[in-house]
Amino acid sequence: MADKIFRINMSDLTTRIEEVPGEWAAHGGRGLTSTIVAAEVEPLCHALGPNNKLVFAPGLLSGTPAANSGRISVGAKSPLTGTIKEANAGGTAAQLLARCGCKALIIEGQAQGDQWYTILLSPDAITIEKETELVGKGNFAVVETLGHRYEGKRGIISIGPAGEMKMAAANISVKDPDGKMRSAGRGGLGAVMGAKRVKCIIIDPRDGKVEIADPDAFKAANKAFATALTSHPISQGLGQYGTNVLVNIINESGGLPTRNFTLGQFEGHEKISGETMYDLIKERGGKAKHGCHPGCVIQCSQIYNDAAREYKTSGFEYESIWAMGADCCVDDLDKIAEADSIMDDLGLDSIETSVAMGVAMEAGVLAFGDGEEMCRILREEVALGTGLGRIIGGGAGLVGRSYGVTRVPVVKNQAIPAYDPRAIKGIGITYATSTMGADHTMGYSIATNILNVGGSVDPLSKEGQVELSRNLQIATAAIDSTGMCLFIAFAALDDETCLPALIDLINARFGISLNGDDVSNLGKHILKTEKSFNEKAGFGKEDDRLPEFFSIEKLPPHNVVWDYPGEEIDSFWDF
Amino acid sequence: MADKIFRINMSDLTTRIEEVPGEWAAHGGRGLTSTIVAAEVEPLCHALGPNNKLVFAPGLLSGTPAANSGRISVGAKSPLTGTIKEANAGGTAAQLLARCGCKALIIEGQAQGDQWYTILLSPDAITIEKETELVGKGNFAVVETLGHRYEGKRGIISIGPAGEMKMAAANISVKDPDGKMRSAGRGGLGAVMGAKRVKCIIIDPRDGKVEIADPDAFKAANKAFATALTSHPISQGLGQYGTNVLVNIINESGGLPTRNFTLGQFEGHEKISGETMYDLIKERGGKAKHGCHPGCVIQCSQIYNDAAREYKTSGFEYESIWAMGADCCVDDLDKIAEADSIMDDLGLDSIETSVAMGVAMEAGVLAFGDGEEMCRILREEVALGTGLGRIIGGGAGLVGRSYGVTRVPVVKNQAIPAYDPRAIKGIGITYATSTMGADHTMGYSIATNILNVGGSVDPLSKEGQVELSRNLQIATAAIDSTGMCLFIAFAALDDETCLPALIDLINARFGISLNGDDVSNLGKHILKTEKSFNEKAGFGKEDDRLPEFFSIEKLPPHNVVWDYPGEEIDSFWDF
Repeated sequence: MADKIFRINMSDLTTRIEEVPGEWAAHGGRGLTSTIVAAEVEPLCHALGPNNKLVFAPGLLSGTPAANSGRISVGAKSPLTGTIKEANAGGTAAQLLARCGCKALIIEGQAQGDQWYTILLSPDAITIEKETELVGKGNFAVVETLGHRYEGKRGIISIGPAGEMKMAAANISVKDPDGKMRSAGRGGLGAVMGAKRVKCIIIDPRDGKVEIADPDAFKAANKAFATALTSHPISQGLGQYGTNVLVNIINESGGLPTRNFTLGQFEGHEKISGETMYDLIKERGGKAKHGCHPGCVIQCSQIYNDAAREYKTSGFEYESIWAMGADCCVDDLDKIAEADSIMDDLGLDSIETSVAMGVAMEAGVLAFGDGEEMCRILREEVALGTGLGRIIGGGAGLVGRSYGVTRVPVVKNQAIPAYDPRAIKGIGITYATSTMGADHTMGYSIATNILNVGGSVDPLSKEGQVELSRNLQIATAAIDSTGMCLFIAFAALDDETCLPALIDLINARFGISLNGDDVSNLGKHILKTEKSFNEKAGFGKEDDRLPEFFSIEKLPPHNVVWDYPGEEIDSFWDF
Repeated sequence: MADKIFRINMSDLTTRIEEVPGEWAAHGGRGLTSTIVAAEVEPLCHALGPNNKLVFAPGLLSGTPAANSGRISVGAKSPLTGTIKEANAGGTAAQLLARCGCKALIIEGQAQGDQWYTILLSPDAITIEKETELVGKGNFAVVETLGHRYEGKRGIISIGPAGEMKMAAANISVKDPDGKMRSAGRGGLGAVMGAKRVKCIIIDPRDGKVEIADPDAFKAANKAFATALTSHPISQGLGQYGTNVLVNIINESGGLPTRNFTLGQFEGHEKISGETMYDLIKERGGKAKHGCHPGCVIQCSQIYNDAAREYKTSGFEYESIWAMGADCCVDDLDKIAEADSIMDDLGLDSIETSVAMGVAMEAGVLAFGDGEEMCRILREEVALGTGLGRIIGGGAGLVGRSYGVTRVPVVKNQAIPAYDPRAIKGIGITYATSTMGADHTMGYSIATNILNVGGSVDPLSKEGQVELSRNLQIATAAIDSTGMCLFIAFAALDDETCLPALIDLINARFGISLNGDDVSNLGKHILKTEKSFNEKAGFGKEDDRLPEFFSIEKLPPHNVVWDYPGEEIDSFWDF
């Protein structure tokens, strides 16, 4: 079964299954979503209008038994940033979509009127059904209801009320094997799906399978690859404490943005740390290790129960915990878990929304540390689309504009995540130059700045940061095309058997013979494709800058500012 | 008394009176505010932060007896658009400031803490006083209270609650001779004043006078100038019906944006027209002719009374009436007057705020035509800074972002005023290319497209519009530097005695010998200074575009779209 392009036009509710154009064949995941968006979307279109397109693409290795290959990429012009956007998520959708023979799903046009739709995909078949039952429902209810509506294990991609209301912080949710949520979080892609009036996408691969050109070579490569992953100490740490292992580490570095980016350390860090979380999980009968998709060998997810030992949340990430915790000064992990769960249900990016809360706290809308009010605002304002709810759901930049706040941590209007660029300078270069707006996953310098993975670059020195971010962003663009979880990068940077094994996997899957240079060139090509789109959308080097306050306000405890001249930042693009 | 630069640093509450630098000497009004902002403000600073500067400058002829020379320019980086900004207003401030020997007032830095301040200016003296009594008060109460606090006639420049709350639609109000409001309306300059924590500026010229180098020549030139103004038929129409004479004219042209820019004609146009307004004014004992500053010979303002013959509003402009009327489908002039009065009191740009209401109506926040709810939202939401109030007070773009609306009539985030660019194409070129965001006053093509002033260019044809807008924008930049009201342009375009008389006035005032080319070069220089600032702030040609919906939605009754290729728009800058 050769892969195909599945195309849906929501303006006239027509569908087509097309051959893959030659120039798209070598792409998958982010490489493919960005290639398609750049080819087919007018860069100056309104992101919520009929001329934007929403593209889903499994990675090159999705649907195979390759370890950790379960990420699905979602692309479009972002209503939050105005740039090209790719966000990826775990869950089961990538694998099931690949098994449908779907190389990419393109949703274009825009349905008129008030009717919502559900899309059903299976091998060689696309169906559009009117949707009524699920409208207005949260993601948990959607998954539960669909469990009754359809038999068997199906992939579910959905938006919550935030996406229906076209909020710029709305994400796209992907069901995981346990019926919980993973999210293509950043950039408001849920609003694009809502603008097309698609509530959910159901994936039923039936007996579809992904063909592997050289099964023996694939098996051998996968073994080597999985070994490299599981033997790396960071993979092991992630398995035990989840990504939240970072709270204490980043606090120690002085780069944990606290109280809306006015401090680099949080008094209450111990109370929200990965270690505390681990103890609570054990004490309450939760699960410290949990995979978001079949085949994951790192298992950084977890099941977090409340004090009554009832399920509260999963995929409880460092960046979300930091945002609601240190950034909003909430030192109560249960309150944070509560807010996390509400955001999963509403379909909101927990980074964007929580940083928005921090800015709202600065504006005096609620008090720093008031986790109770944070949950109330989510439940009673955001969920209902009140004025305040729209502001919070519009993201940190919108809160800043609405309340005239000057300390607004965004780049290209996207909230800066959990690492202060003044104290960890490599990540600042990534925030400034990323084609997606501020996004730590685009070039995770923390690996080398803090964790000493792939060498070591002093986080407080300006030296070497541009080169570090450049190399990481190129590698990340390539990894994001494979369907691999970004956490393979730790092993890839330190273990010389890892990357060759990954390349062997791709070669065995397609019967080709890529080498390391090909992969690096792929990453460069993707970044340049994305940058070219952004330039046509009106973004220039002046947009590759951090907000002014980072340059004029010193961050304790190191009392450092962000002091890169523009030309130095711009040298990022010298490749 | 040689003119000086008055400088106030709000960070440390220091003041200085400085000599005028040589390169600023030839400038006044907009030319001077733009020159100072371009020279002293870092283009990438936060508009509400300490590095923005708020500059007030009377025009070159302000404070002299020259007819219609009472405009004051206010400049800064705009919190609404992010571009350089100049907005000008009538009232008495320009004349009184000039009589203080103040060529420009520069307010820089930012006061810390919660304290508000009032600034007192007189010849060679600047005082900063703590302000408590006026905080939170509307502009009408400010003017009334200050009338008790200070003896004699003083100029008052103030912000209302909107400016205190740093809303991006906040304007700066200038008292007129009757204690009513004129506004430097566009671009959120009131928020910049609020960010500096300056509630008001009191101007007391004592016995200060503006020196005139050649009084006889000045007197002769002024006579010729005033004659040219008063004999032009449009000046006369403006005197009788006010600017609102345009409702029926623009409706007839099919370019009256109606129902949030979905129609080009408004069913209820007669009910809100200048003719109807004139009859109501007469019937209710109002005043059809009224000048916003001493020396105005056109008198386009008016006193509009309510049904009980009580004062309701003045300076009741076509663009405001259009915005609340046709754009929001409210066909009740009294409701519109009520809303206009509330906006004057709160200190809100009536164009930005009302277009924001139209977008909110499209989003379903309130119903089209519901003038009652519009007034309630202003009084109970905007005035109190509720979530919805912040959204409306943030302008049309913010409403669009908050509610995911795609039909958002803004350029560079500033609301498009009362002339649909699809049906009146010259004004579209002005909206797209203006250095200030969408602003009809920057190059008022309506004169030639609709009123046949300065020739005639078919509004529905693409031909000649770029050149028309270019010539008008150059001339306007120069006129905005003189302190002259823009309505001198009608006479200047049609009567060959007008412009020479204006140049003679400037020459007689300063003892110099400018000619027509000098004036045109001044206009070009100002535009290029402003454009250069904007480029450094990150604006490129992709920002010189109208929103997508103008290109894909046909406007009845002519069923026309906006269809200029980007290169054609960009040729505007070929000078």
